[in-house]
Amino acid sequence: MASEPANDAPHRMIADDVVFGSNVVVHPFTNLYGCRIGDDSRIGPFVEIQSGATVGRRCKIQSHTFICEGVVIEDEVFVGHGVMFINDKYPRAANDRHELKSPSDWQIAGSTVERGGSIGSGAVILGGLRLGAGCMIGAGSVVTRDVPAGAVAFGNPARVRE
Amino acid sequence: MASEPANDAPHRMIADDVVFGSNVVVHPFTNLYGCRIGDDSRIGPFVEIQSGATVGRRCKIQSHTFICEGVVIEDEVFVGHGVMFINDKYPRAANDRHELKSPSDWQIAGSTVERGGSIGSGAVILGGLRLGAGCMIGAGSVVTRDVPAGAVAFGNPARVRE
Amino acid sequence: MASEPANDAPHRMIADDVVFGSNVVVHPFTNLYGCRIGDDSRIGPFVEIQSGATVGRRCKIQSHTFICEGVVIEDEVFVGHGVMFINDKYPRAANDRHELKSPSDWQIAGSTVERGGSIGSGAVILGGLRLGAGCMIGAGSVVTRDVPAGAVAFGNPARVRE
Repeated sequence: MASEPANDAPHRMIADDVVFGSNVVVHPFTNLYGCRIGDDSRIGPFVEIQSGATVGRRCKIQSHTFICEGVVIEDEVFVGHGVMFINDKYPRAANDRHELKSPSDWQIAGSTVERGGSIGSGAVILGGLRLGAGCMIGAGSVVTRDVPAGAVAFGNPARVRE
Repeated sequence: MASEPANDAPHRMIADDVVFGSNVVVHPFTNLYGCRIGDDSRIGPFVEIQSGATVGRRCKIQSHTFICEGVVIEDEVFVGHGVMFINDKYPRAANDRHELKSPSDWQIAGSTVERGGSIGSGAVILGGLRLGAGCMIGAGSVVTRDVPAGAVAFGNPARVRE
Repeated sequence: MASEPANDAPHRMIADDVVFGSNVVVHPFTNLYGCRIGDDSRIGPFVEIQSGATVGRRCKIQSHTFICEGVVIEDEVFVGHGVMFINDKYPRAANDRHELKSPSDWQIAGSTVERGGSIGSGAVILGGLRLGAGCMIGAGSVVTRDVPAGAVAFGNPARVRE
């Protein structure tokens, strides 16, 4: 475990339960808890990574990105700026009894980005999807279906091109 | 008024004029001023809520979201991650005299999200709209028109589906 | 140079090499380094502006926006909330030798927003583009081509309308 991204650095909230590989760089204004970050990866500013999310080795997680519980980012994945992952297919604030929904009120449906994938800035990734190895998702896309390995997909909704 | 989301907590900027209901939770890296937040609501990290905005009871305002002056969020509304509200139909930096525009140079046109609505992550909500009770806005949508109560709308621009 | 947006203000990371004009306002939760910011401009919260980027005079850079190396924002430009600029056409995390990519592994292709332009909230601006003087980019647009001076463009991909 690397000691560099320590919890007492300025402007970072890194919970004690985050598991870091070696040589990880975490920029200021970050909120990480209960996640795993692999060797040599870099986490940009204004990023939140939730409990139960996994980031592989040699990944770049760029600024303003949100990675939620259940998401698996394999090795050498590029996640651009302002990318939003989702793990709840029918989000609501309150349940039928008009209580704030708690984790027992929904099923986590995280997505997986396979090795070497690249997600353009501003993309939104719906829950429960598999983005194949080496795929490239265009900036500003809304990904609603699985993407095959090596494919290029973009648009709202994202479609595989060529 | 709850005392919990106090102004002196780490990594939060909560102005003295924010009016909190009871049992509100405000996460780190938040910038709130002049707004009202109802009972039991939760405000995620990297959120700004401006003066004159209102958030109801039992709402979830997720990370990276911007709620501007004039926006009304009623009770039990879910606002996903990275949602941008807008209140200026023709934004410009400077006025015709080449001075930075000030509040007297534009008319605020906030939107209202009625009770129980749900706004997917990455959505953009233009100014002056009404999103009806219980509606669901898909992730990554750009909402340019009113949405009827109970409707499901998505896309860029968002359209009511089915 | 203005002394106001000093490096020791709370919740701001402003590197010593940032060059400020007079009367600049920088809000909390900002991460600025190696950039130039012109007279009277305002930088909102949760904004990152990278080394080598330039912001002109009387600009508004709104919250949650990312301005990357190589971007030139001329005078009196409005950049809305949650706007993502891009400077890398084929982003990947690692190079062919499975090492984290470094600046020598890609070519910077920044975009220019000419005087008086306006970029709506949530827009994504791809690399290497020129957005003409006084143009208006609709909220939530994905800009993939140059935009002529004075044009209104929106959508994903953004198209010039009427």
